[in-house]
Amino acid sequence: MVIGPHLPQGLTTPATLVLADRLERNLTRMAAFAGESRIALRPHAKTHKCVEIARRQMELGALGLSVATVGEAEILARKRDSRAYTASEVTDVFVAYPLWADDELLRRLGRLADRVQVTVGADSAQAVERLAPIARDLRVMIEIDCGLARSGVTPAGVTVVAQAAERINLELSGVFTFPGHSYGPGAGAGAAEDEARVLAEAAEILVASGFRCEQRSGGSTPSARLVRPGTLTEIRPGVYVFNDAQQVELGVAAMDDVALMVASTVVSRPASDRFVLDAGSKVLGPDRMSWATGHGRLADWPHARVVGLWEHHAVVELQGRGPALGEIVAVVPNHVCTAVNLVADLLVVDGGSVVERWPVAARAANR
Amino acid sequence: MVIGPHLPQGLTTPATLVLADRLERNLTRMAAFAGESRIALRPHAKTHKCVEIARRQMELGALGLSVATVGEAEILARKRDSRAYTASEVTDVFVAYPLWADDELLRRLGRLADRVQVTVGADSAQAVERLAPIARDLRVMIEIDCGLARSGVTPAGVTVVAQAAERINLELSGVFTFPGHSYGPGAGAGAAEDEARVLAEAAEILVASGFRCEQRSGGSTPSARLVRPGTLTEIRPGVYVFNDAQQVELGVAAMDDVALMVASTVVSRPASDRFVLDAGSKVLGPDRMSWATGHGRLADWPHARVVGLWEHHAVVELQGRGPALGEIVAVVPNHVCTAVNLVADLLVVDGGSVVERWPVAARAANR
Repeated sequence: MVIGPHLPQGLTTPATLVLADRLERNLTRMAAFAGESRIALRPHAKTHKCVEIARRQMELGALGLSVATVGEAEILARKRDSRAYTASEVTDVFVAYPLWADDELLRRLGRLADRVQVTVGADSAQAVERLAPIARDLRVMIEIDCGLARSGVTPAGVTVVAQAAERINLELSGVFTFPGHSYGPGAGAGAAEDEARVLAEAAEILVASGFRCEQRSGGSTPSARLVRPGTLTEIRPGVYVFNDAQQVELGVAAMDDVALMVASTVVSRPASDRFVLDAGSKVLGPDRMSWATGHGRLADWPHARVVGLWEHHAVVELQGRGPALGEIVAVVPNHVCTAVNLVADLLVVDGGSVVERWPVAARAANR
Repeated sequence: MVIGPHLPQGLTTPATLVLADRLERNLTRMAAFAGESRIALRPHAKTHKCVEIARRQMELGALGLSVATVGEAEILARKRDSRAYTASEVTDVFVAYPLWADDELLRRLGRLADRVQVTVGADSAQAVERLAPIARDLRVMIEIDCGLARSGVTPAGVTVVAQAAERINLELSGVFTFPGHSYGPGAGAGAAEDEARVLAEAAEILVASGFRCEQRSGGSTPSARLVRPGTLTEIRPGVYVFNDAQQVELGVAAMDDVALMVASTVVSRPASDRFVLDAGSKVLGPDRMSWATGHGRLADWPHARVVGLWEHHAVVELQGRGPALGEIVAVVPNHVCTAVNLVADLLVVDGGSVVERWPVAARAANR
């Protein structure tokens, strides 16, 4: 099987391609799930970093965007009538991160909050207190750890943070978590249960302590569609727009749900069962979880394994017939969020041709 | 011990810093080794991608640059009198990669060869044949595999490639290899021996078959200074300019030889022995070899271990006293080549202040 129609003629490689039909299907499917489940969808824009995709997510009913940094929000939530970007649909952003705001970040948050609704994450009283100078312009969500052991308080730790918000008159919207332990074979359902249980506990503690807690926000791509109605108020999946080899190997997506691929040329064939591609870690991203079968997958060669990855070489093992020297193949990155962040533009492919070039507008907006 | 003097006041994080004094010492030391050993130094520019560093390498006696892509050569070998860049010292580049040249790449190679000496790598007769239209403007080096099992022919396979070059009147400079299996604990010396032996075998076969073979090019940072005089004619280390956590953990560099660090803020302290930094895989790079102690190291907290890495979170475990919430620490990436490629600029620190901002000019020049 050759994916031919998806690979336009005359590509120079490596090139990061978005398959427009699959992207649209992924966007629509998640929007439909959220609509049917009566859960708000606040997609995480760190995956795509593109104004064009953010806008389409809003058109399909997203409540707003999740972002990881203030910089992503500044770029993706610009007004449609500004000169640089036209994404006026994004009027509500949630910086789903335990922000530590220094003076520069406070100034930027303040300016951002002048034009859109801004909610930030926090997991300590000290971090909340830093927001005091702009507290009346913001809302805050308290981060809860539901099993990942990254940032976030335990449910019992939530009141200390809420009290800090109350002291500075910062509106508390609710609680959020990232069930990142969903990233393991068969782990999605358990992570979704942890997330719902822990957010419910935290919300209950807040309400019992006299605080409001309207929002319970969670949701990663592997767990989002396992969320039961009535448990969360919003989900924040990111990867679902493109999917990637991780999602395929977790069983969350099929290979033909993958909407982003790196076109790559076979540059070397040193052995009959081994060849080398010109897509390396500087375009695929070096991410590899312990359970991954390799450093990405080849869309049209399901038995191939990417056994080695260097900056400009992917070494592929494949028994039997494989692509010839000079042939172009489609490589699916392990983790699409880091792959997108490595390129200036995404080439949008529709009907076998490159129809558009979307800037990765928030590329490297790490702050 | 606090690295204080190296972290300027008022930094916004994450920020990728270059310590000017350490960079200069690393550059000088490798240049001195090459000079004393009478081996030409052709530094690999994929590590730094900076015009400023390329120029300093040339001033210190480098023969030319190694690059991974034609794009890197185009950017780093611009003439000093051109408006965009002033690196006229770079008049000789070696694309140390098994290039597969399509028509677009042939045009670009031809234009590049109009202004500087260009040598390209090849490991098959077919790849050589594609160079026919511009053969008289180039030289070629044949890639030999000395144990990495990536690209490259065996020494016995060298004549077929040399014959292809002869047929198209492409000048053969010699043979090259990348002893990447030097990247393992205690593996440097063995890899350096493999490299010397395999290049000598290939050169001998070429000469016995009536070909010239003047160059034997090798050398990675872990093996470069283990090369014995008289074995190689040139070395191509890249990482040595900055070093990184991999080099420290391999014993190739000391922590105070590390010239690039990511300033990062403690944003969360969810447990007494665990804290979270705002430098994640989108600024440190996700690389982690099997023998690494974690996802990078903290320069001033030698017992700390970066046990988890997400796009914007590094989770650090440390028993006892550690940095406080809001404190800025210096993180040493595992693999500096991918870390540099993630940012637009490097902040150059000298005497405790940011004195310059160097563009990562060849960032994402993957083609």
